[in-house]
Amino acid sequence: MKIIRSPTTMAVWSERLVREGVKIGFVPTMGALHEGHRALIREARLRCDALVSSIFVNPAQFGPQEDLAKYPRPILQDRALCRKEGVDVCFEPTVEAMYPSGFQTMVTLPAITRRWEGEVRPHHFSGVATVVTKLFGIVRPKMAIFGQKDFQQSALVRQLVKDLNLGVEIVVHPTVREEDGLAMSSRNVYLTQDERKRAVMLYKSLRAGAEAIGRGVTDGKAIGSAMAQVVKKEPAITIDYLAVCDPTTLEPLSTVRGKAVLLGAVRLGPVRLIDNILVVAKQARRKF
Amino acid sequence: MKIIRSPTTMAVWSERLVREGVKIGFVPTMGALHEGHRALIREARLRCDALVSSIFVNPAQFGPQEDLAKYPRPILQDRALCRKEGVDVCFEPTVEAMYPSGFQTMVTLPAITRRWEGEVRPHHFSGVATVVTKLFGIVRPKMAIFGQKDFQQSALVRQLVKDLNLGVEIVVHPTVREEDGLAMSSRNVYLTQDERKRAVMLYKSLRAGAEAIGRGVTDGKAIGSAMAQVVKKEPAITIDYLAVCDPTTLEPLSTVRGKAVLLGAVRLGPVRLIDNILVVAKQARRKF
Repeated sequence: MKIIRSPTTMAVWSERLVREGVKIGFVPTMGALHEGHRALIREARLRCDALVSSIFVNPAQFGPQEDLAKYPRPILQDRALCRKEGVDVCFEPTVEAMYPSGFQTMVTLPAITRRWEGEVRPHHFSGVATVVTKLFGIVRPKMAIFGQKDFQQSALVRQLVKDLNLGVEIVVHPTVREEDGLAMSSRNVYLTQDERKRAVMLYKSLRAGAEAIGRGVTDGKAIGSAMAQVVKKEPAITIDYLAVCDPTTLEPLSTVRGKAVLLGAVRLGPVRLIDNILVVAKQARRKF
Repeated sequence: MKIIRSPTTMAVWSERLVREGVKIGFVPTMGALHEGHRALIREARLRCDALVSSIFVNPAQFGPQEDLAKYPRPILQDRALCRKEGVDVCFEPTVEAMYPSGFQTMVTLPAITRRWEGEVRPHHFSGVATVVTKLFGIVRPKMAIFGQKDFQQSALVRQLVKDLNLGVEIVVHPTVREEDGLAMSSRNVYLTQDERKRAVMLYKSLRAGAEAIGRGVTDGKAIGSAMAQVVKKEPAITIDYLAVCDPTTLEPLSTVRGKAVLLGAVRLGPVRLIDNILVVAKQARRKF
């Protein structure tokens, strides 16, 4: 496995492969890799000829009060995982190389980022959209794999690629979960043992929403209440939002008819957790 | 010459050529082609293997009070010029194909667009940056040629390509002028015969600024006054700005030491004209 730190060297490597007709797969990460990332890398490995993974803790997507400084950076373990899973290039640019003096361009998607994570974290998604555009420019992938856990992020990347004609196929891989159902996240290491036990309530509340839809409930508010009831059993948890939305626009649904996504974000002490489930209301299923 | 209207068809054409190692040159235009465009196309033709020119009157870069509806669109003449100059593909997307329903991504460069044209035309440059990013995504050029006449636009495109790692070499071609010195522009057709005669005063005022620098004047304000004096001889002309600036950041220079750009914008009745000259102050020249 090659480790490349310079964006120019990375771009030269990619350009040569593109000219040779090699299909480059790409898994962008902030490191602190877990089983969720491993699943993304394995999917890319199966579907592409060459595989690039990036490890870059992108300061532009952290707010001033957020965890940029303490974000976990176990680079040797991360490289070992990449090597083991057959990554060809681990791209590890520096902050200075990505944002040199004079840097100013911002990529924004106002509609899809207006709610949910975008409301709680004001500049987060323009940081994501900008760095993804940059990484795609450097790595020139034919396909990029994102985790469903960050659902709004994956919806944003799809819209970004379509809007800017970036020519990258976006694959969203299902969320990988711990045995009790908690979504894997690099931020789970911040949880105390006690918080870790309670954290599963977020997933349980989303499941309750999905089950309500399964029972035929179509009213958005009723589904929201079904989810909130579950979390409220755990007084240590504060709800940021629990919502049932259109999976493309992320606008809340007053009535669930076809596909929907249940989105949730909660706080457990200082730790913030997000999760989601995709559902299809019965009425919308094809009958055979 | 091929005429392609669909962005997807265009992208497929380009991708095949990129894979074959063909160097694609690109001249993006809004049509209404004149000798200035012809010079850009000729330069691209000399420096690249395949040549794409786009004709797209981009609504996103026009303000609500501007001339979008009446902007000249002599498409048959434009195609004839492209054909004659050896363009391989004339890319003519529709507005609906470029901005389909749900489109929302904006690319902005706040620092370089804060002044001059950006101040007078608030959303103009985010429209330019967004469409250029899209066109580069579709056409995949190795090199793109812009005219120096729109100096702030060319500075913006250079910064954009650097910031988003778009991997396109930007070439800025010197302004082509009428015999009396007036910069060629698709908007010159809006001038009455009388206004046309007076319009040259903009270029003359920039020349006066350059001559002042040639005589050793280094004070930014004095150079500004030298330019303004010339235009003020023509009461039919209103000055929007006449400034001496850093050619990369476009910040005004209080003292001219090395390279500088003289930027000017004036109004002649309802018509707005811009122009510029690049200069190097004597003190900065190498002695042999």
